Amino acid sequence: MSALTELTNHQVRLAARPVGLPKRSDWNFTTEPVREPVESGFVVKTLMLSLDPAMRGWMNEGKSYIPPVALGEVMRAGGVGQVIASRHASFPVGTYVSAGLGVQEYRAFDSGKGVTAIDLSVAPLEKWLNALGMPGMTGYFGLLDVGQPKPGETVVVSGASGAVGQTVGQVAKLKGCRVVGIAGGQAKCDFVVRELGFDACIDYRAGDVRDGLKKYCPTGVDVYFDNVGGEILDTVLTRINRGARIIICGAISQYNNTTPVKGPANYLSLLVNRARMEGIVVFDYADRYPVALKDIAQWMAEGKFTSREDIVEGLETFPEALLKLFSGENFGKLVLRVAGN
Amino acid sequence: MSALTELTNHQVRLAARPVGLPKRSDWNFTTEPVREPVESGFVVKTLMLSLDPAMRGWMNEGKSYIPPVALGEVMRAGGVGQVIASRHASFPVGTYVSAGLGVQEYRAFDSGKGVTAIDLSVAPLEKWLNALGMPGMTGYFGLLDVGQPKPGETVVVSGASGAVGQTVGQVAKLKGCRVVGIAGGQAKCDFVVRELGFDACIDYRAGDVRDGLKKYCPTGVDVYFDNVGGEILDTVLTRINRGARIIICGAISQYNNTTPVKGPANYLSLLVNRARMEGIVVFDYADRYPVALKDIAQWMAEGKFTSREDIVEGLETFPEALLKLFSGENFGKLVLRVAGN
Repeated sequence: MSALTELTNHQVRLAARPVGLPKRSDWNFTTEPVREPVESGFVVKTLMLSLDPAMRGWMNEGKSYIPPVALGEVMRAGGVGQVIASRHASFPVGTYVSAGLGVQEYRAFDSGKGVTAIDLSVAPLEKWLNALGMPGMTGYFGLLDVGQPKPGETVVVSGASGAVGQTVGQVAKLKGCRVVGIAGGQAKCDFVVRELGFDACIDYRAGDVRDGLKKYCPTGVDVYFDNVGGEILDTVLTRINRGARIIICGAISQYNNTTPVKGPANYLSLLVNRARMEGIVVFDYADRYPVALKDIAQWMAEGKFTSREDIVEGLETFPEALLKLFSGENFGKLVLRVAGN
Repeated sequence: MSALTELTNHQVRLAARPVGLPKRSDWNFTTEPVREPVESGFVVKTLMLSLDPAMRGWMNEGKSYIPPVALGEVMRAGGVGQVIASRHASFPVGTYVSAGLGVQEYRAFDSGKGVTAIDLSVAPLEKWLNALGMPGMTGYFGLLDVGQPKPGETVVVSGASGAVGQTVGQVAKLKGCRVVGIAGGQAKCDFVVRELGFDACIDYRAGDVRDGLKKYCPTGVDVYFDNVGGEILDTVLTRINRGARIIICGAISQYNNTTPVKGPANYLSLLVNRARMEGIVVFDYADRYPVALKDIAQWMAEGKFTSREDIVEGLETFPEALLKLFSGENFGKLVLRVAGN
């Protein structure tokens, strides 16, 4: 381990609020020395960062569920890393942690607040950014708490091969539901059916989602977990059952719009079907993360739950890596490896 | 009372599915003899009919919460009337009833199914189509069951001076909420504040609804009861609080569209605020109507609850009377008086 003073912290900062897709010029690459930990503080070396659709929202001005990233600030990102210097008894050097590290190589923490030690004997590093991280928690609580699926019901999830979708579909299967994914491309559809055990998957790039829903959800849709918004949300609204629950988790199709968001024109289906559309923000469930972690870790250990990550290498590739989410190029949870462990 | 054979039943039938606002040529005026009641049947003379925005939906083809009115069929309408011939022990001649009478002067029932005797000592006829009828039930259960308002919360209701809005606002006040209406025109706004006791009312024709919400809902909106859809729904979505409940009761602004319904572009506010948008159809609460009737009748008797009806005269004016709903010309629950009682 090098002395801290010899280290340079490479960082990616928000330089401009993007219009449409974020461009390389919307970012600034900066360096900073790594500072010594204060008393009860510690320094974490970033190993992997989570790249998420929500990041696009954080880059916009305006009120949301968390404040926007300020111009000039290191871009916000969740990540996993290792403690390399410590004056905190609970986070000794060598501890692997999950925390808001930001898009940078090192972060000094002044306390353990918001930092969680992770156990690599349960699952490798990248899983702590996926099924055992925010996407897993989002899928687990969004599906179970907001969606309230009952055995035998039909659950549809968009972004099915993505980070949240993987968990939603597998948890729904474990709860006895019929599960139909929506994903882009044959490879992703094959993956969710063959590897994750979904009952079917609709390739929205190959054909009509409405036809797919008619074919694969012959008794209608009871729970729809929406990660994409736009046309797909509107189409699913035409196929929901009475009392259906729609979980609004995100709307990746709309995040880079330069025109206003497209609202769901078929929302009156909520009235006809006495159905519900409800938003979820994962942070609200923080108190109960341990419950979900225990369940998912156990399912993993029993071979009933798997996950897939798409790992991109190198902090400097961050601007382009992030765009894979919006083109749908990523296949599985998108992770940026910043350093080896 | 004339012999049934001497009576002619004037009827209004759906002649064509309207495009946009229903025109007079979308209706057929027909006559039929009045038939004698079968055993356990009875004949009701229509006194008043309820004219409702939902009727516009029933005129369209396609799946909804009830089948569309068929072309050539007597237009569906709820109404109140009096039994004029009877072979049913529970509905003797002279009984006042509420039932699906249709837009016609007489209806023969073969059983008492769907027919409810009403007590004019509790409230006059027109109130049984308003606060003690479907609009009252809709407002009561939509607000309390779906909206779940808590004392001190802010409840906003659009179509505030209309049939459903009157009940929503007054029940919310009785439950200890701050209540803000949205209505068209100063007279309606004055009415809901002065007569119904709302805390404030925003005249959407006079100014900016967003400014009004900022002014009159300084702590945000906890419950929004939506009767109108369109721009107003979109604007309220920008002002909702965390955990807000939006009741989708109707979307009168969209019913005569010849272009697609405008979906709520700000629906992602549901995500940011972990809020819910849920549809209501009053028929689901039929088992519990007596509970609501008892409450509302008692509030009326105690002088804590009032209502206003806009009574238009004559079956033959039905086509034009219905349009008042969509122009907003009606002031209070729109009722068509077909005959005197």
